[in-house]
Amino acid sequence: MSGESVTLDLLKRKMEQFAEERDWEKFHSPRNLFLAMVGEVGEVSEIFQWKGEVPKGLPDWKEEEKTHLGEELSDVLLYLIRLSDICGIDLGKAALRKIQLNAIKYPVKGSSYNVSNTSNSS
Amino acid sequence: MSGESVTLDLLKRKMEQFAEERDWEKFHSPRNLFLAMVGEVGEVSEIFQWKGEVPKGLPDWKEEEKTHLGEELSDVLLYLIRLSDICGIDLGKAALRKIQLNAIKYPVKGSSYNVSNTSNSS
Amino acid sequence: MSGESVTLDLLKRKMEQFAEERDWEKFHSPRNLFLAMVGEVGEVSEIFQWKGEVPKGLPDWKEEEKTHLGEELSDVLLYLIRLSDICGIDLGKAALRKIQLNAIKYPVKGSSYNVSNTSNSS
Amino acid sequence: MSGESVTLDLLKRKMEQFAEERDWEKFHSPRNLFLAMVGEVGEVSEIFQWKGEVPKGLPDWKEEEKTHLGEELSDVLLYLIRLSDICGIDLGKAALRKIQLNAIKYPVKGSSYNVSNTSNSS
Repeated sequence: MSGESVTLDLLKRKMEQFAEERDWEKFHSPRNLFLAMVGEVGEVSEIFQWKGEVPKGLPDWKEEEKTHLGEELSDVLLYLIRLSDICGIDLGKAALRKIQLNAIKYPVKGSSYNVSNTSNSS
Repeated sequence: MSGESVTLDLLKRKMEQFAEERDWEKFHSPRNLFLAMVGEVGEVSEIFQWKGEVPKGLPDWKEEEKTHLGEELSDVLLYLIRLSDICGIDLGKAALRKIQLNAIKYPVKGSSYNVSNTSNSS
Repeated sequence: MSGESVTLDLLKRKMEQFAEERDWEKFHSPRNLFLAMVGEVGEVSEIFQWKGEVPKGLPDWKEEEKTHLGEELSDVLLYLIRLSDICGIDLGKAALRKIQLNAIKYPVKGSSYNVSNTSNSS
Repeated sequence: MSGESVTLDLLKRKMEQFAEERDWEKFHSPRNLFLAMVGEVGEVSEIFQWKGEVPKGLPDWKEEEKTHLGEELSDVLLYLIRLSDICGIDLGKAALRKIQLNAIKYPVKGSSYNVSNTSNSS
């Protein structure tokens, strides 16, 4: 499966099944999952910690290091998705909404077309 | 748009466009984005900090609090996706692979039915 | 040496000497040290993550686990002290000042006795 | 009071008194305090997030920004001290011990004098 078509919902269902099969649901309380996510954020931090500034695309990193980073970023993602699910939050919907809120909070500057039009609308 | 069909790739492209339109790409270095994500993890932590243990589904939370939590979880997600993109990592692909690695690391116990059947299937 | 008399300044000097002796000063930039601290915060989180709520004094923890926790809390402290030093911040002074600011922000409630006396004292 | 003589024990006692006076002890469980600390770590992260690499001593920062950083680093310290206290851990003692463990883990290299002597001692 290519990464492009991966939905948050697919990962959510996979995490749910994973927990069910191992009888881990009893451990998956909101704060437990949040702390597990913080632990994984720490793992990502350890990868970046002694490197100084790092250029886009990580050109000088060994393939092995990039794979390791991908694994730790995935761990953050998977706990984040599981935490959202256990809290009853539709993360995909919330994320789309948050982008819209951010667009209102940080309007695109210098877009004279939009600016001239705003006076007519709001 | 329903949350179910939201792909990581869609959010990645939205974040990329958001940064381009605001000329924010110069700020989006790997470590800057990671620190921004840690800041958002802190915001989630503040929501949970004085609550003691919290049951699944957050039954006693006000709608407003749940919306706030959804926003902060979204901020973590959006920076995580942007960080992965800037590092050249296909987060969806990495996450599916990580689930497979986890399944090997933590095999399902006591599933004698599955075990006896495995020889027939894959 | 008993823990009671340990000053922030003593730990600061020990960390400085430790880095000097190993020629590690080149790695000790503010953001590197901050990321190292986040890594250690993650280690503490991993200790607490699957435990659910934990009572004061950790009565049911093995001695080994408490020792481990003490080590990880120490790592957070040592990087925090080193980070403050490298940033040119007197952490002891800043902490005393912050407690005073907090006392103003969160005044003691219902202390009518104190209130009536304040006019006489400071 | 000068920052030099500030002991961890003094800050511990001040935090204890602060909580007592406000009847906040009921909120100060280990995991609540840890989450509060993570929230403060997030505040520090927000200060550093868009700055790229930052030189030692923060030469280009405004006084106001450095004061703000000192406040957030203090918040991390105060919750760390309070968390340790509530867990029954002597943080000063643990930190001195951890420095000794680190010195064993990372011996000073190229110290031929020490090396030639080690054969006689241990």
